[in-house]
Amino acid sequence: MAFELVAGLAAKEYVTDLKLCRVLFEDNKYYPWIFLVPKKENTKNMTNLNMEERFQLMREIALAESVMFKLFSCDQDNVAMIGNMTPQLHVHIVCRKQGDPEWPDTVWNRTTGKYAPEVKAEIIAKIRAEFETQKQNPQYGQF
Amino acid sequence: MAFELVAGLAAKEYVTDLKLCRVLFEDNKYYPWIFLVPKKENTKNMTNLNMEERFQLMREIALAESVMFKLFSCDQDNVAMIGNMTPQLHVHIVCRKQGDPEWPDTVWNRTTGKYAPEVKAEIIAKIRAEFETQKQNPQYGQF
Repeated sequence: MAFELVAGLAAKEYVTDLKLCRVLFEDNKYYPWIFLVPKKENTKNMTNLNMEERFQLMREIALAESVMFKLFSCDQDNVAMIGNMTPQLHVHIVCRKQGDPEWPDTVWNRTTGKYAPEVKAEIIAKIRAEFETQKQNPQYGQF
Repeated sequence: MAFELVAGLAAKEYVTDLKLCRVLFEDNKYYPWIFLVPKKENTKNMTNLNMEERFQLMREIALAESVMFKLFSCDQDNVAMIGNMTPQLHVHIVCRKQGDPEWPDTVWNRTTGKYAPEVKAEIIAKIRAEFETQKQNPQYGQF
């Protein structure tokens, strides 16, 4: 599949590749936050995926939720496809905690703050390693 | 499947039932907006669904997107599972238009305004009828 990330997503940190999606990291120290971006050309939203691709996206969302719940203390995960500003399908997976800066509101266009670079590198490495471990589970599809 | 809607969802208008989900309507005249609520007990978020249920949820999301794009003029649909305030899995499907009151921001906890009752009844009837037509399409599962 030939695909390119639009500018808003190309600026995000790379985590790993899954069968359908590239995993990217959002540099916001208040919330553990990743994206799943289907590696398919001209994909603005889910209506550009066929049903088999939608099922694989769902498997990879399940994998991403499992990774994030394992690594971080989450009271709730927010899973969202919005795309008003970035015209390429990307699924937000955000760990939320009661008492986080915006709880119980949503996180979009609110509190931001960057990680210290060494902390960020460590968190991305942890997320990548956990994806490597869990993606062996056949329920998430063949990787 | 025995299930009950939590208070925040029980207050929403009923649209129709699908195989997995109940479809509810959000009374916000600025955005065509529905919810899919899996009819399964003790379902706080998607991690409470097994993979077959997740696939059926994805089929029903695809059906709901198709219904909403057919009926309303949408530039983008927002599909989101948040659940910070309402502890029962519900998928937001919101039609967005460039120039709508919050575009390109998100819609949660922002501009609200109720429909006139007769307009609301007419829109719900239109959405219900379109679900009845499109759910015959076998790609959305057996209803």
